[in-house]
Amino acid sequence: MGLKVEIIGIGNELITGRILDQNTGYAAARLHSFGFEVSRIVLIGDQPKIIRSALKQAEKRADAILVTGGLGGTLDDLTVEVVSRTFHRPLVLHQGLQDQIKRFLYKMDIPWDPMFEKMAWLPEGVELLHPRPKACGFMMNEKGKPFFFLPGVPFEMRRFLDRQIIPYLIQQYPGQGVIRQRVYNVFGLLEQEINEKLKDLEKRFKALQLGFYPNFPENDLTVSVKSEKPHWADHLLDSIEKEVENRLSGYLISKNGQTLEEVIGELFKQKRMTLSVAESCTGGLIGHQITSVPGSSEYFDRGVIVYSNRSKTELLDIPKRILSRYGAVSKKTALLMAEGIREQSGSDLGLAVTGIAGPGGGTVKKPVGTVWIALSSTQGIKAGHFLFTGRRKQIKILTAYTALNWVRRYLLDDTFLFSD
Amino acid sequence: MGLKVEIIGIGNELITGRILDQNTGYAAARLHSFGFEVSRIVLIGDQPKIIRSALKQAEKRADAILVTGGLGGTLDDLTVEVVSRTFHRPLVLHQGLQDQIKRFLYKMDIPWDPMFEKMAWLPEGVELLHPRPKACGFMMNEKGKPFFFLPGVPFEMRRFLDRQIIPYLIQQYPGQGVIRQRVYNVFGLLEQEINEKLKDLEKRFKALQLGFYPNFPENDLTVSVKSEKPHWADHLLDSIEKEVENRLSGYLISKNGQTLEEVIGELFKQKRMTLSVAESCTGGLIGHQITSVPGSSEYFDRGVIVYSNRSKTELLDIPKRILSRYGAVSKKTALLMAEGIREQSGSDLGLAVTGIAGPGGGTVKKPVGTVWIALSSTQGIKAGHFLFTGRRKQIKILTAYTALNWVRRYLLDDTFLFSD
Repeated sequence: MGLKVEIIGIGNELITGRILDQNTGYAAARLHSFGFEVSRIVLIGDQPKIIRSALKQAEKRADAILVTGGLGGTLDDLTVEVVSRTFHRPLVLHQGLQDQIKRFLYKMDIPWDPMFEKMAWLPEGVELLHPRPKACGFMMNEKGKPFFFLPGVPFEMRRFLDRQIIPYLIQQYPGQGVIRQRVYNVFGLLEQEINEKLKDLEKRFKALQLGFYPNFPENDLTVSVKSEKPHWADHLLDSIEKEVENRLSGYLISKNGQTLEEVIGELFKQKRMTLSVAESCTGGLIGHQITSVPGSSEYFDRGVIVYSNRSKTELLDIPKRILSRYGAVSKKTALLMAEGIREQSGSDLGLAVTGIAGPGGGTVKKPVGTVWIALSSTQGIKAGHFLFTGRRKQIKILTAYTALNWVRRYLLDDTFLFSD
Repeated sequence: MGLKVEIIGIGNELITGRILDQNTGYAAARLHSFGFEVSRIVLIGDQPKIIRSALKQAEKRADAILVTGGLGGTLDDLTVEVVSRTFHRPLVLHQGLQDQIKRFLYKMDIPWDPMFEKMAWLPEGVELLHPRPKACGFMMNEKGKPFFFLPGVPFEMRRFLDRQIIPYLIQQYPGQGVIRQRVYNVFGLLEQEINEKLKDLEKRFKALQLGFYPNFPENDLTVSVKSEKPHWADHLLDSIEKEVENRLSGYLISKNGQTLEEVIGELFKQKRMTLSVAESCTGGLIGHQITSVPGSSEYFDRGVIVYSNRSKTELLDIPKRILSRYGAVSKKTALLMAEGIREQSGSDLGLAVTGIAGPGGGTVKKPVGTVWIALSSTQGIKAGHFLFTGRRKQIKILTAYTALNWVRRYLLDDTFLFSD
């Protein structure tokens, strides 16, 4: 069991660290979830000798080889030439591909250039993966082993992988078994604390594997079962799921990769309620997260980003004397912000945050990271004090996440407003 | 010239793709900038056979080897054992390290566990990298080649790398030369178009290398010079810089990795001007980007996220008849939004966006991706129509970026308002 796949990422940008490679990790995750074994990921630069050696080594030790990058039209894209020489496959013109490139350029009003010519010459005997004008991928067989060559542009790479390569591999190499995995998004527990709560399950069920993956500000958890029988794996996961949910209750944000804002979106739609927000230190991040969900206009009415004191007074009627007496970052101000935005908008809920994101602006009494969050409904209002650590960006993210989590907790149980 | 370094990342999480490895990319970038050549990055799982083969291969082809991960105390951390067997160095107890671990546990009130014992047994003859209780790194020499073993926890790894390994390499292998690199953030040109504009420079100067890095929505460019003489490299880059700036003028957002919002921040501070924004389809993203810059409260007064029609009327005084006659996504509405937010805030500039981010809400006349941007100052006002493609997230990002780029262009040249 287990087709061994080796993944090779090609591009100088990968080994000079200029960009973080996301393609090979994505491909590894996808292949893994279908039961294929990724034995190695190799990242190399655009150097013919090293590309050649990596291809040759992978051919020896793996059953299938996936290569990303180096397929573009620019001078530093050398993959095709090296493949041609390494596997003695002369370059031939793919007329259909060239025609397609020409049609695309014409449509986009981009003049022809020899660079584009290069893109249509591919090693002999390769099979084009559904050709697309701006990104070309191909596959070939060497000594019975499939080689897949994909462009380095992430969304093109993913498209080829998901629509063509994985279906091809499943068809050609059946019986890999499957890995069934549940993902749990957890907020407020350390990796070690989650492990402590669940580790006996791993001992009890041999096919079970826990994985811990910091995904700031969450600590995500995967529960995986590898089996040749998909039904059995599903059944085991189902029976464990309740146990996991009980033990992580209160910290479990979602299952199966839903984001916090998607969870909230579903709850708002179910309850037919609406939300408006008043943001200070997050500067619009809360609104941005809420509106990243399609259809959020159904429940999100408005937001105000009251960065200056004057804007707090003008947009939310916060009296100047409150601001000067208690400060913009205070319980009093947070409460008035939440009430103000709820009342002016007529929304069911008003959410407000005010804090010091830093690096400047901190004092001994209110250090950087000091945040007040307030949530107002027609039945009541609640405010909470937090001291987050990290850099400006992290403090903004922690504040927005915690505030949205308050909304989630309220929507699940409206006594939340009256709890400590 | 060029000490070849191979980087090996160890951990099942890396080849199951569950987490994105950031350690090897970080190490590559740091080593590269000091003139060391990273020849290969290899990611493998916690399998003794594969770890052994990767160590042996790296020893053959590289001059120095950096290994991250697999040094923890849990059962799946196997690196130390494999190193011991591969290089015939029996494990010995490092008493000093064990004492330190014990002191740390005592201080943190964590009970002793055999797992911690394991952490103090290391291969014979290795040198500890400043031992730290929770993360241990070490180095050794095999046949004159240095091997460095670092923990996989990112901030610990970075600490060892920056404070000990890079200084060690510079001292042991002087005369690597340097790589001097300028980064240009470019918006509005395809990779091929940038290449077209600059490729003759690469032919003219042999020490010069161009790199292209899609960084949505930007297409970033690096211009690198490798030389043994840092001064000469700087001089060559300086003289090329003007040429690059001329040829990319209009599309060049920044140099040296500044973000668009940082560029804008500096311009606002120089000009002592202020900004307020009115966002619809971006939902707060513009405000979030502006306020990601420390000190942005100096020039950013407020934002309104007018998601519903009612909020457009209530917060910006947009007449209902305008909304019903022209629609919320219209030139007229965008203009009134920009003027409305500028006037109510008293800011020098008012920026507004309204559009259809999708996936729903599109019509034949106004398909998904239709966006109006407007910028208002006391001297005049300008609106522009855009049709962006992509998913909801991309359309939000393109809208926010384009809008902020309007602000940048205005701050550089205020006749922008009166240009086509």
